[in-house]
Amino acid sequence: MIKAVYPGSFDPVTFGHLDIIKRAAKVVDELIIGVLVNKNKTPLFSMEERLSLLKEVTKEFQNVKVMAFEGLTVEFARQNGAKLIIRGLRAVTDFEYEMQLAQINHSVEDEIDTMFFTTSLEYAFLSSTLVKEVAYYGSDTKKYVPEAVAEALRRKFPVKKECSYIEEKEEA
Amino acid sequence: MIKAVYPGSFDPVTFGHLDIIKRAAKVVDELIIGVLVNKNKTPLFSMEERLSLLKEVTKEFQNVKVMAFEGLTVEFARQNGAKLIIRGLRAVTDFEYEMQLAQINHSVEDEIDTMFFTTSLEYAFLSSTLVKEVAYYGSDTKKYVPEAVAEALRRKFPVKKECSYIEEKEEA
Amino acid sequence: MIKAVYPGSFDPVTFGHLDIIKRAAKVVDELIIGVLVNKNKTPLFSMEERLSLLKEVTKEFQNVKVMAFEGLTVEFARQNGAKLIIRGLRAVTDFEYEMQLAQINHSVEDEIDTMFFTTSLEYAFLSSTLVKEVAYYGSDTKKYVPEAVAEALRRKFPVKKECSYIEEKEEA
Amino acid sequence: MIKAVYPGSFDPVTFGHLDIIKRAAKVVDELIIGVLVNKNKTPLFSMEERLSLLKEVTKEFQNVKVMAFEGLTVEFARQNGAKLIIRGLRAVTDFEYEMQLAQINHSVEDEIDTMFFTTSLEYAFLSSTLVKEVAYYGSDTKKYVPEAVAEALRRKFPVKKECSYIEEKEEA
Amino acid sequence: MIKAVYPGSFDPVTFGHLDIIKRAAKVVDELIIGVLVNKNKTPLFSMEERLSLLKEVTKEFQNVKVMAFEGLTVEFARQNGAKLIIRGLRAVTDFEYEMQLAQINHSVEDEIDTMFFTTSLEYAFLSSTLVKEVAYYGSDTKKYVPEAVAEALRRKFPVKKECSYIEEKEEA
Amino acid sequence: MIKAVYPGSFDPVTFGHLDIIKRAAKVVDELIIGVLVNKNKTPLFSMEERLSLLKEVTKEFQNVKVMAFEGLTVEFARQNGAKLIIRGLRAVTDFEYEMQLAQINHSVEDEIDTMFFTTSLEYAFLSSTLVKEVAYYGSDTKKYVPEAVAEALRRKFPVKKECSYIEEKEEA
Repeated sequence: MIKAVYPGSFDPVTFGHLDIIKRAAKVVDELIIGVLVNKNKTPLFSMEERLSLLKEVTKEFQNVKVMAFEGLTVEFARQNGAKLIIRGLRAVTDFEYEMQLAQINHSVEDEIDTMFFTTSLEYAFLSSTLVKEVAYYGSDTKKYVPEAVAEALRRKFPVKKECSYIEEKEEA
Repeated sequence: MIKAVYPGSFDPVTFGHLDIIKRAAKVVDELIIGVLVNKNKTPLFSMEERLSLLKEVTKEFQNVKVMAFEGLTVEFARQNGAKLIIRGLRAVTDFEYEMQLAQINHSVEDEIDTMFFTTSLEYAFLSSTLVKEVAYYGSDTKKYVPEAVAEALRRKFPVKKECSYIEEKEEA
Repeated sequence: MIKAVYPGSFDPVTFGHLDIIKRAAKVVDELIIGVLVNKNKTPLFSMEERLSLLKEVTKEFQNVKVMAFEGLTVEFARQNGAKLIIRGLRAVTDFEYEMQLAQINHSVEDEIDTMFFTTSLEYAFLSSTLVKEVAYYGSDTKKYVPEAVAEALRRKFPVKKECSYIEEKEEA
Repeated sequence: MIKAVYPGSFDPVTFGHLDIIKRAAKVVDELIIGVLVNKNKTPLFSMEERLSLLKEVTKEFQNVKVMAFEGLTVEFARQNGAKLIIRGLRAVTDFEYEMQLAQINHSVEDEIDTMFFTTSLEYAFLSSTLVKEVAYYGSDTKKYVPEAVAEALRRKFPVKKECSYIEEKEEA
Repeated sequence: MIKAVYPGSFDPVTFGHLDIIKRAAKVVDELIIGVLVNKNKTPLFSMEERLSLLKEVTKEFQNVKVMAFEGLTVEFARQNGAKLIIRGLRAVTDFEYEMQLAQINHSVEDEIDTMFFTTSLEYAFLSSTLVKEVAYYGSDTKKYVPEAVAEALRRKFPVKKECSYIEEKEEA
Repeated sequence: MIKAVYPGSFDPVTFGHLDIIKRAAKVVDELIIGVLVNKNKTPLFSMEERLSLLKEVTKEFQNVKVMAFEGLTVEFARQNGAKLIIRGLRAVTDFEYEMQLAQINHSVEDEIDTMFFTTSLEYAFLSSTLVKEVAYYGSDTKKYVPEAVAEALRRKFPVKKECSYIEEKEEA
C-alpha cells in the first residue's frame, strides 16, 4: 500500500493544489495533505481555517486526509508511515528549489522519495500569493479557487478597494 | 490610438527603466508610467520623490505621463483606458514571474495584453536594489542612473562609508 | 504608423502562432508575417504551401500581410520599412535564445527593435514540431491547428500508423 | 492496479535510468520500460541490443517489463493499459521540454498522466550521449553504466584512442 | 601573485563552502574568506562565531585567511589588493544573480574580475538555510557541515523538537 | 605553476572568446587554447585556418599557446599537465550543459577542475554560429570578431546576398 504526503501552506488552497490532489489520489492508496505551520510567515488564514477549507474541498476524495504539522516534511512523512512526498511543479524556478528539497529530504531519510506532477496548463500561473493579491483589491477569485475559498476570501477582504491614483504630470 | 501602462516601483528610476520607456514610447501613442504604492515594502524614495524624479527624467518624451497608483496593474490600466501593459525582461528568473503576472492579468481583464521588451545589454545587470546598495556604501551611481537620480541618492547617503574590516587570522 | 515583422518557419502555422498574430495585429498598424527560407532544414510544407495556409488562416485580419524571405530578419524588416520585430515567448529556453537574437539584430540595425508577447496558456506547449509528430502517427491535430492546416496534415500523413510494439520479456 | 510506462531511447541504459526504474518500481504495480524506435536518429546499439541489455540489468525487478515501441508514448501507454508515464528530471532544460511533452500527451489522451522523479544527485550529470563520448575515446564507463553495458561499449569501441594533438605555436 | 576574495555570509560554513575554498586555494596564491556583515539579516551565528568556526575548519590551508567586512565586495577586494572574487555556483537561479553581481562589481572596479567554480555534485543541494532548518528541528547535520559546526548547531538548538501534528479528518 | 586549458571549436574565434582568453591569461601562468576536432560537425574553417587565426589574434599574450586536439578535454588537459579547464558562461542554458561537463570531466580525472568566467556584457549575445549567419548574408562582422577573422569571413562569403523576398498577399 502506497501512502503519500502532499505538504504545503495552502493559504488558501487553489484549483492548482486541487488539481495535484486529484491526480495524486488516483496513483497512491492514501494521500495525506500536510498543512505546514510556518514559523516565519503570518498566514492570512489560521491553521483551523486552512484545515477546514481543505477538508471541505477534498471531501469527495475517499483516500485523502488533512493534517497539520510542524517540522521537516520528511519527518512528518516518516511518522505517518508515508514513503512518498508529492509536489507540484509550475515553473523552472520552482524546479530548482524542489530539486534541492528532494535531495535534502532524501539525505535525511533515504527511505522516502519525492514524486512530482507538473501543474495543469490552466493553473500554471496560479499561486496562493497572487490569489490573495487579487482578493485584497476586491476582485473576484472564483476562477482561481473553489467557491468555499472564494467566499472565505470575500469575508477577509469585504470592501471593494478602488484602484486609486493621482494624475500627476498635468500640473507640471 | 494605442495607450499603454508601464508599471513599477521606480525606487529609483534607472537607465534600464529609461531604456524601456524610450523604446515603448516609440511604439505606442501614449505611455503612462504607473508608480506602484507597494503596501509591503518601505521605499527609499517617497512617492512624491519618485514621481518627481520620473517627471524630470522623462520630460523630453511628449507622449509619456507619470502617475501613482495602488492596486492591480490591470485595474489601473482599465481605468485609464490602456489596452497594453509594458514590461522589461532582464533575465530568465524575471521571465517566469512576468509570464505568471501576464497570465493572471489577462485572466482578470481579458481585453488587456502584456508586451515585453528585453533590456538593452548594457543595462541587463542593473536593478534599483543594486543601485541603492552601491549608493549606500558611498560609491558613485552616475553610470547607472540619470544625474538627477544620482544627486538624490547622494543626498540620501551623504557620507562615504568606509568598507571596514578586521584582520582576524593573524592573532590565531 | 507602426509596421512590424513577425518572422518564423510556420511549418505549419499553429493556434499558438495565430494567437500572437491576432494580438500583435491589434497593437501595430501593419503586420508582415515573414516566412523564412531556412537553408539548413527541409520543411514538411513547401514555401508555397506555407504561404497559402497562412493567407487562408489570416484572411480576416485586414492589416496582416504574408511574405517569404531569405536572410537576416533584421534585413527583411529594414527593406520593408518595419521598425519592429514581433516574437512569441513560450518558455525559458526560448527566452535566452530570443534575447540573443534580439541583441544581435539590434547590433546589426540599431533602428529596429524587438517586442515580445508571451504565448497564451492554452498554447504554451504547442510547437510545429510536436504537431507534426502527432500527425505523423495519425492522431488528429485539430486541437492544435486551424482546420485548413489539420486537413493539409492529413493529406501529408494519410494512413493511421499503428503504434507498433513487440512484447519482449515474456520469452526470456 | 497502477501500471506505468517509462519511455526512452536507452542507447545505452545508464545508472541514471536504473535509479529511476528502481524508484518507480516501488511506487507502481507494473512498470513497462518502453524503448523508442526513433525514426530520426541512428542509435549506437540496435533495438535488439538495447532490449537485451535492459532485460539483463532489470532482471531483479519482478514488476518490470521491457518492450520496444514506435509512435507516440501516450498511444503506447493506452494500448498497454497504462495510466501513467514516468519521466526522470535531471536539469532545468529537461524540465521545460518534459513539461511540454506532458501537456501534449495529456491533450492527446486526457486519461493518462505523467509523473516525475528527479535524478539522484550522483547521476545528475549522466546522459547516454556523454557515456558514449567517454567510451568512444576509450575511457572506462563502469562508473556510469552497469557492467554488462560497459562490456558492450568496450566491444563497440575496442581500441583505446589516443588523445592526439599537435603542438602548434612553437614553430611559429 | 594572484590574491582572491571568497565572500559570503557563512552562517554557518557548510561542506559546500569548504569544497569551493579547497579548490580555489589550489589555484590562487592567497585566498581571503570575507565574512559579510549583512545589514538586513539577523544571522544565527554572531560575526565572532562565524569567524571562529571558519578559522577552525580552514586551519589546514596555509594560504587561506579569514576576515570580516562590511560594504561592497569589490571595495573589500580592492582594499586588500585582491584582483579576483571567487564564487560558487550551485544552480541556475544562483547563476543569474551571480552574473548580475559580477557585472556590477566589474563596472564599479574594472580591474577586478569574478571567477566561478560549480559546487561538487554531493553538495549541490546544500545551503546554510537548509542546514539551519534541519538543525532547528533537531536532526543531525554532520552530513552537511564539519563536526565543529554541527556541534555549534547542537548548542544553538539543544532540544530535539518533535514533529508535532494533529490528526484532523477522523472526527469530521 | 598553474597551467590551464581553454577548449572550444573556435569556428571562428570571436571577441567573446578573446575576452575569456585575456581574463584567464591574467590568472593562470600558462593557458593552452585547445581547438577541438569535432567528429560530428563540418566546420566552416579548417583546423589549419582556426589555429592560424587564433595564433594571429592571441599573439600579444606571452603565456598563451594554441593547440589542436581530438578526444576528451580532460584527457587533453592531463596529457599537457594542466590541472584546470577554463570555460566561459554566457547564459543559463550554457550553464547546465557546462555543469554536466564539469562533473563528468571531474569524474574521469578527479585531479582536474573546471573554472568559469561569465562573458562580458557586450559579448553575451555573441556566438560563432550567429557570426557565421551574419557573414553568410553578407553583413559585416567586424563588431563581433577581430579584423583578421572578419577578413577571413569575407573571403568565405564574398558576395553580399540580397535579402530576397516575394510580395504575396496583394495578388490574392
